[in-house]
Amino acid sequence: MISGRGSNMEALIDACDNQVVRADVGLVISNIESAPGLAKAHDRGIDTLFINHRGRSREEHDLDLVAAFQQQGVGLICLAGYMRLLSTELINAFKDRILNIHPSLLPAFPGLDAQRQALEYGAKVSGCTVHLVDEELDHGPIILQRTVEVLEDDTVETLSARILEQEHIAYPEAVSRVLSPGFKLEGRRTRVVLPE
Amino acid sequence: MISGRGSNMEALIDACDNQVVRADVGLVISNIESAPGLAKAHDRGIDTLFINHRGRSREEHDLDLVAAFQQQGVGLICLAGYMRLLSTELINAFKDRILNIHPSLLPAFPGLDAQRQALEYGAKVSGCTVHLVDEELDHGPIILQRTVEVLEDDTVETLSARILEQEHIAYPEAVSRVLSPGFKLEGRRTRVVLPE
Repeated sequence: MISGRGSNMEALIDACDNQVVRADVGLVISNIESAPGLAKAHDRGIDTLFINHRGRSREEHDLDLVAAFQQQGVGLICLAGYMRLLSTELINAFKDRILNIHPSLLPAFPGLDAQRQALEYGAKVSGCTVHLVDEELDHGPIILQRTVEVLEDDTVETLSARILEQEHIAYPEAVSRVLSPGFKLEGRRTRVVLPE
Repeated sequence: MISGRGSNMEALIDACDNQVVRADVGLVISNIESAPGLAKAHDRGIDTLFINHRGRSREEHDLDLVAAFQQQGVGLICLAGYMRLLSTELINAFKDRILNIHPSLLPAFPGLDAQRQALEYGAKVSGCTVHLVDEELDHGPIILQRTVEVLEDDTVETLSARILEQEHIAYPEAVSRVLSPGFKLEGRRTRVVLPE
């Protein structure tokens, strides 16, 4: 699910094409018709849907999403710059099967403008977090985190660019972990138990 | 200032002895008479003081600390496992000249049991932070942070031990930064501007 350029979406499509991730991207949904990522996905031969959220309740909108994902046989939903909160209906329909990526080392700097928050706080290290989505914002169990050093002369733009590079590595790796048969969720701790 | 074994204190003494840090440890103060670090410092020929906090207000106690530090000509105070909040009097007497080390990547996991907090949250990365002390707990401007990967089988003990190794590297490095003539504090961001 995207709302914008979909650069993390492209990283996931690439990883599936290269079989780094053993899965197929079955469907890309955007709530914004003009999202550049929607056209990119279409050009790469992936089914796409625009489902407008305007003028409808979050529940109505999200039940359409659930129907579309189920019809396509989707097993895992990845939020890639999808700029809306999810309803309980959607979260429960895909319990522990929705991933999000956030540009900070959660629980530090949740919410909007995480890179700006990190700079203003004066953090020396930031990064990105891929986590399962639960009902609280940027809060669910963490699949993986990658760190990025904050440089003394960083601006929001330069820091965001370096974090984005790590996001493109982190997201496919996180999807592989969650799809692994050994993936376990123990409270908030996640692990991959490989067979002997 | 210590309250316990003083392993970060020893790392700082070593760094000064080896001239990795260009400074001398002038005085070690503990609020606990039996703190093992106090005996270690004494054995290494460093002046030590036990200043009891019991039965006295925080302000009374801290004014004794200020007097002791000033008499010794101390320019920078390092908290190394000192388990008491500082009064405004002490913070203001050594404004931006008091350092603390905390076993997490602040602002994540402030307060007690930071390593346990990180494990229970399911963080995949933690570390340590050296920061200037202000009136809020674990909050002042950050001098540096070092990261530690959280392993799937980590316990509080194993994670704490690996973070402590990084603390012993981080603290001397942070002291060097703060003592550098190029050290600058800009809002919450710290930097070292080296001469051309």
